[in-house]
Amino acid sequence: MEGSTAPEEFRASIAGAIVTNSLFMLGASFLLGGLKHHAQEFNKAGTRLQGGLLFLATVALMVPSAIAQADRAPGVAFTQTLSAGLAVLLIVAYGLGMLFSLKTHRELFASAEHGAEGEAPWPIGLALATLAGVTVLVALVSEIFVESVQHAAAAFGMTPAFVGFIVVALVGGAAEMASAFSGARKDRLDLSVGIALGSASQIALFVAPVLVLLSYVIGPTPMDLQLWPGAVVMMLIATLTAALVTNSGRSAWFVGVLVLMVYLVFAMTLYLLPPRVQ
Amino acid sequence: MEGSTAPEEFRASIAGAIVTNSLFMLGASFLLGGLKHHAQEFNKAGTRLQGGLLFLATVALMVPSAIAQADRAPGVAFTQTLSAGLAVLLIVAYGLGMLFSLKTHRELFASAEHGAEGEAPWPIGLALATLAGVTVLVALVSEIFVESVQHAAAAFGMTPAFVGFIVVALVGGAAEMASAFSGARKDRLDLSVGIALGSASQIALFVAPVLVLLSYVIGPTPMDLQLWPGAVVMMLIATLTAALVTNSGRSAWFVGVLVLMVYLVFAMTLYLLPPRVQ
Amino acid sequence: MEGSTAPEEFRASIAGAIVTNSLFMLGASFLLGGLKHHAQEFNKAGTRLQGGLLFLATVALMVPSAIAQADRAPGVAFTQTLSAGLAVLLIVAYGLGMLFSLKTHRELFASAEHGAEGEAPWPIGLALATLAGVTVLVALVSEIFVESVQHAAAAFGMTPAFVGFIVVALVGGAAEMASAFSGARKDRLDLSVGIALGSASQIALFVAPVLVLLSYVIGPTPMDLQLWPGAVVMMLIATLTAALVTNSGRSAWFVGVLVLMVYLVFAMTLYLLPPRVQ
Repeated sequence: MEGSTAPEEFRASIAGAIVTNSLFMLGASFLLGGLKHHAQEFNKAGTRLQGGLLFLATVALMVPSAIAQADRAPGVAFTQTLSAGLAVLLIVAYGLGMLFSLKTHRELFASAEHGAEGEAPWPIGLALATLAGVTVLVALVSEIFVESVQHAAAAFGMTPAFVGFIVVALVGGAAEMASAFSGARKDRLDLSVGIALGSASQIALFVAPVLVLLSYVIGPTPMDLQLWPGAVVMMLIATLTAALVTNSGRSAWFVGVLVLMVYLVFAMTLYLLPPRVQ
Repeated sequence: MEGSTAPEEFRASIAGAIVTNSLFMLGASFLLGGLKHHAQEFNKAGTRLQGGLLFLATVALMVPSAIAQADRAPGVAFTQTLSAGLAVLLIVAYGLGMLFSLKTHRELFASAEHGAEGEAPWPIGLALATLAGVTVLVALVSEIFVESVQHAAAAFGMTPAFVGFIVVALVGGAAEMASAFSGARKDRLDLSVGIALGSASQIALFVAPVLVLLSYVIGPTPMDLQLWPGAVVMMLIATLTAALVTNSGRSAWFVGVLVLMVYLVFAMTLYLLPPRVQ
Repeated sequence: MEGSTAPEEFRASIAGAIVTNSLFMLGASFLLGGLKHHAQEFNKAGTRLQGGLLFLATVALMVPSAIAQADRAPGVAFTQTLSAGLAVLLIVAYGLGMLFSLKTHRELFASAEHGAEGEAPWPIGLALATLAGVTVLVALVSEIFVESVQHAAAAFGMTPAFVGFIVVALVGGAAEMASAFSGARKDRLDLSVGIALGSASQIALFVAPVLVLLSYVIGPTPMDLQLWPGAVVMMLIATLTAALVTNSGRSAWFVGVLVLMVYLVFAMTLYLLPPRVQ
């Protein structure tokens, strides 16, 4: 029982984290920064890369769900093979994106890297091993975390969709949000946008694919990337909105309001959605 | 009978007005201006705000329809509560947009305000009361108007979908179109774009939400924001097209042709659509 | 039997050529150019026109399929009349686009025309007659071509959807791809983007509509523009991706990787898709 519903909740919390990071974290950064500073500018090259990666990831994550939706029953084997293939593609894209931003075109990302100027670089082997280890750890911890939040929220009468998409993502991203908001207040919007889009695309391009591939090794059943249609629509609108508002490289408080409003529309819908419908 | 179909026709004419203003009014302004002037420029900050508001409104108006479509029967109570919540959100966004463009960042909208430079500002209380009064009046008048146009057009063999979406919107927006086209001919494209996107977002962010909220007080049955899927797709494409073409802040006659073509595709589809299908 | 399935395959290969040209040809040009040159710039006005035309064409091609999908059975007569009307609209838009880029605003496209500077202009009558003749020829040849590729690929166990969308489009566009890639290596990205988007929009705005109209004269049954939902989604994402990445007028190798990844996602999906599902 436990084992069979876990993948469902994982996928909801992955989609929720992408939506929350690219709408709430970004919008609140714009709003908080804009309330203090009349107008703010940020580095365009870095945000375009993040926006492009995020859009690609959303397209890849959408495909299995779109096909399952359009054709009713394409078969479980098909969805799982496709998900594994897409997972490999996404990890390759993530790796090439790192190569681009840290090696071949690092001068474009100068300002975004600024925050880490005091740190010595890690050896690549250690960095990759740590990254893999942390991902597995996060996956295991978040299973326990999601479950306990789910129980607590059910006691308040919240729907599972609202909890998985909104509450878990907000609580789980609290630390990153604190950094993003503090950057925005200090007129370092580069940092805020980088954290918001960076963490969204890291989940989509690294955490989700690694979980899919790991589920073949350690999970009770292989996990696929099939989401319910509403989640796909929200991810698409969230990443499109993030790409549109970061495209100009400038911001004022009202841009933050607009982005937060889109998030509120989603949160309100999920809050009101009757449980059986999700 | 009359009372029960009215909300349906209202919603169709709201969606039609948004599509007609953001495609036909904008496209014809670009074309008419472009036939006289080789290339035209317009203020970007103002159109970006309007474009952003319009996109937000489309997302909000889409959500109830998308959920109803995806999940077949989510229940009438759910759709109505959600519509009322979204209506409040849209009105708040509209108010904050006014605060942004008229108070905190008015310097960004200098050129677009130009046309009203001679007018003395109204006291805020009077302005709001007038706005509310005019909206109710327009709603009542347009019920009679829509009905009489519907009868006339049916005599010509036009489908109800074509009448509600295209004919009513074109006739109802005639006065604004005259202003927009005259601005375009005088190389004041700021004004034309402002009128086209401004009236589209005013309908989406103020008229539609106010009608939803008023329907709880004065209507026979509460009105919700649920539209047929084709209307949602048209609104989404219309606002996306408007956002894309206004984004560069420059125009030539062919941009107008492209936008008008998208409108013609919709008009032709609605004209040919057999009545029972809508 | 043969005659009744041909329109289906035609439509698949038209959609496949649009997707392949706007993703694979464009992405590979960016990647190949970017591996040789650190950063590349290209003419924005020309690509914006192509991007705009392509988006319009995708919207027009989508409408019959979207309505058929949303409303289940709108009737064959409706779909055929609508397809014929849309075909006329698209050809008019194509003609006006030529007028714009070759006559009234040719100075905007100076750089993109560069490659043809040595050629003397053809008389308009001869040019049009040649264009019409070549189109009919291509249609007849590609029927034979598609069929033989289909047989060969079936022997390798490839699904018909993969063959129609990917294999036929890659083989059929080989000559244009060679030009586009060679332009990219010579830092003439204008040329590459022009060929990729130009050939995609030529298929959508000229070849497909002419085939629809010709099918009334020479075909066994009139051909319409109705595609399966997955093809519509892919066309929409492909043209949106092409519009987004060409919008900035600058490129580096990783932009090519992103575009190619989207194409790989589609190719992988079509390769794995069980035959009966398409």
